[in-house]
Amino acid sequence: MMKVTVLYEHPDDTGAFEDYYANTHLPIAAKMQGLAKIELTRFVAGPDGKPAFYRMAELYFDSPEQMQTTLASPEFQATAGDLPNFATGGFKVVFGSIDG
Amino acid sequence: MMKVTVLYEHPDDTGAFEDYYANTHLPIAAKMQGLAKIELTRFVAGPDGKPAFYRMAELYFDSPEQMQTTLASPEFQATAGDLPNFATGGFKVVFGSIDG
Repeated sequence: MMKVTVLYEHPDDTGAFEDYYANTHLPIAAKMQGLAKIELTRFVAGPDGKPAFYRMAELYFDSPEQMQTTLASPEFQATAGDLPNFATGGFKVVFGSIDG
Repeated sequence: MMKVTVLYEHPDDTGAFEDYYANTHLPIAAKMQGLAKIELTRFVAGPDGKPAFYRMAELYFDSPEQMQTTLASPEFQATAGDLPNFATGGFKVVFGSIDG
């Protein structure tokens, strides 16, 4: 299984981020086809205090071919293109292969 | 659901990392109790080249209480304490709550 992981840095305004994320970004993301699963994580303070990242989104695909098909789609491009509209702290996108 | 995410930076020697990870670290980690699931991801090069991190390990728990119980256990401490033995590039640990 493959996945695309988006790591969001802490935004300038978490309220504005959450509002845009829930009401604008996720509806755009929901138009993507070919995903096996999406997992959304909000990080919380740990023993070391403020977490290293603010949020993470993980997009799962059943195969590398399916991932490539989705990445090439206009719906994925629209989703990725929307990131700078609200991820004011910056973000990292990493592509991965799940073991086992 | 809750999860603990370990983000591994690129190690000095990936061969040594992989050998220790598979043969020493994962057997230590397997002794932890109370996990709902473990997911191990190896990042691959993307359109931007070298990924921002080398690997990711995600430990899932059914509740915050179960996560706390496991985090306080000697088996978790042994697993966390083993990280500096092979994660030569450094690592970040983040605690998260999964949406929905």
